[in-house]
Amino acid sequence: MTTDGHATDDTDDGDVEEYADLGATTANAMEIAETSMDRVRNLVPDETLADRIRQKSVHATGDPEFQHLLRFTGTDDSEPVRAGARAVLDEAPVVTDITMVKAGITGRGHDCEVRKAIGNGAELAAETGMTRTAASVLELDSEGVYDGAIAVVGNAPTAALALADCLEDGTRPAAIVATPVGFVKAAESRQRLREVAAEQRVPLITNVGRRGGSGLAASLTNELIHVASDVRDGDVVLDEQ
Amino acid sequence: MTTDGHATDDTDDGDVEEYADLGATTANAMEIAETSMDRVRNLVPDETLADRIRQKSVHATGDPEFQHLLRFTGTDDSEPVRAGARAVLDEAPVVTDITMVKAGITGRGHDCEVRKAIGNGAELAAETGMTRTAASVLELDSEGVYDGAIAVVGNAPTAALALADCLEDGTRPAAIVATPVGFVKAAESRQRLREVAAEQRVPLITNVGRRGGSGLAASLTNELIHVASDVRDGDVVLDEQ
Repeated sequence: MTTDGHATDDTDDGDVEEYADLGATTANAMEIAETSMDRVRNLVPDETLADRIRQKSVHATGDPEFQHLLRFTGTDDSEPVRAGARAVLDEAPVVTDITMVKAGITGRGHDCEVRKAIGNGAELAAETGMTRTAASVLELDSEGVYDGAIAVVGNAPTAALALADCLEDGTRPAAIVATPVGFVKAAESRQRLREVAAEQRVPLITNVGRRGGSGLAASLTNELIHVASDVRDGDVVLDEQ
Repeated sequence: MTTDGHATDDTDDGDVEEYADLGATTANAMEIAETSMDRVRNLVPDETLADRIRQKSVHATGDPEFQHLLRFTGTDDSEPVRAGARAVLDEAPVVTDITMVKAGITGRGHDCEVRKAIGNGAELAAETGMTRTAASVLELDSEGVYDGAIAVVGNAPTAALALADCLEDGTRPAAIVATPVGFVKAAESRQRLREVAAEQRVPLITNVGRRGGSGLAASLTNELIHVASDVRDGDVVLDEQ
């Protein structure tokens, strides 16, 4: 129901005759979102829960090719989606790396606390010289925040690297979405996270290459929330896929 | 100094030996950002102010091809950059379409008020049936908010369409950054904005195609702020380019 991963509260843009369309605003917004997703479904398979994440990635990036860049770490491609949706249903906290990702998580369809890591761990960063983003993850991890949580990294490769170390040290998020972007360690941080997540059996959704970003991470997380809503409504049964 | 357009307060990720690097955190962050931008400068020309926006688009998307998708509406490609930087120096308000874009605007290097449109115009939307995002733009426009402002659209095509109508009705933002993303009217809304901005002589930075998004819009706006900082520091003279 969202474009570019922003909160659904924020949007009702789309395919109307210019912008004025006599009719319900929310219903209209839903219709618009459906039109958009219908177009995406013509470009991306629609068979598995993993396909819903692939669709969402195309929706969020506006790029049909992005579906091929996603990677799913788990017993099968859909496992991280099931794990994420279950965590949403369990009202697990959603912990983002930065403010912008937090701002992109929908306020609807869940009762999860949404919080960000950045802003924590300032002392640790000052003491050790590690980056503030890494320190923020380690600080929250020392408080046990990531165990059972949905961990989301949209921007900071160092957050993804720190999270990988936490997994090695025994932390068990319910699921991870990690799509940090850029030319410095972004792809490498995701690769390391995939290796550690596979070893430690933590369900993970990432991508390959330099692309990614906050909007994408928020959007994929919102799709986990959407899947959870569908489970709640009886439209999806998690164990069957 | 940012990746993916988030506030610079939020980040210091990057090219360190793993995430721990004995050294200053902020200095380290700046070094990392420079490393990243150095790589981008190998991929994108570095001659004009417009090139700085092209570089930033590559930095934000992690995709060297994105530079070719940008479009600059003005007397020359760099005019919207000069106009945006001047507006930052004049402490003009920065008005974003949605919350996520606002969250991505850096808090440093400027004294501009940063506000979002969404959340305004609920009555107008209810009365007319237009979308909430369009109504929010028209509502703020009726209050004169966009005149002299830096208008930023990262997500909502209907916000871009509404803004185009405002320009036709005589509203004069100092500069516009518009990169709404998606499969429904995103490209069309940007095209219409370009046509109207050219007619009305309003400096505008947009892109072609379906790609775009909140992170990109925030990032390009942050580069306008960065250019303004360079002007303030005497490193850039706006009239010479």
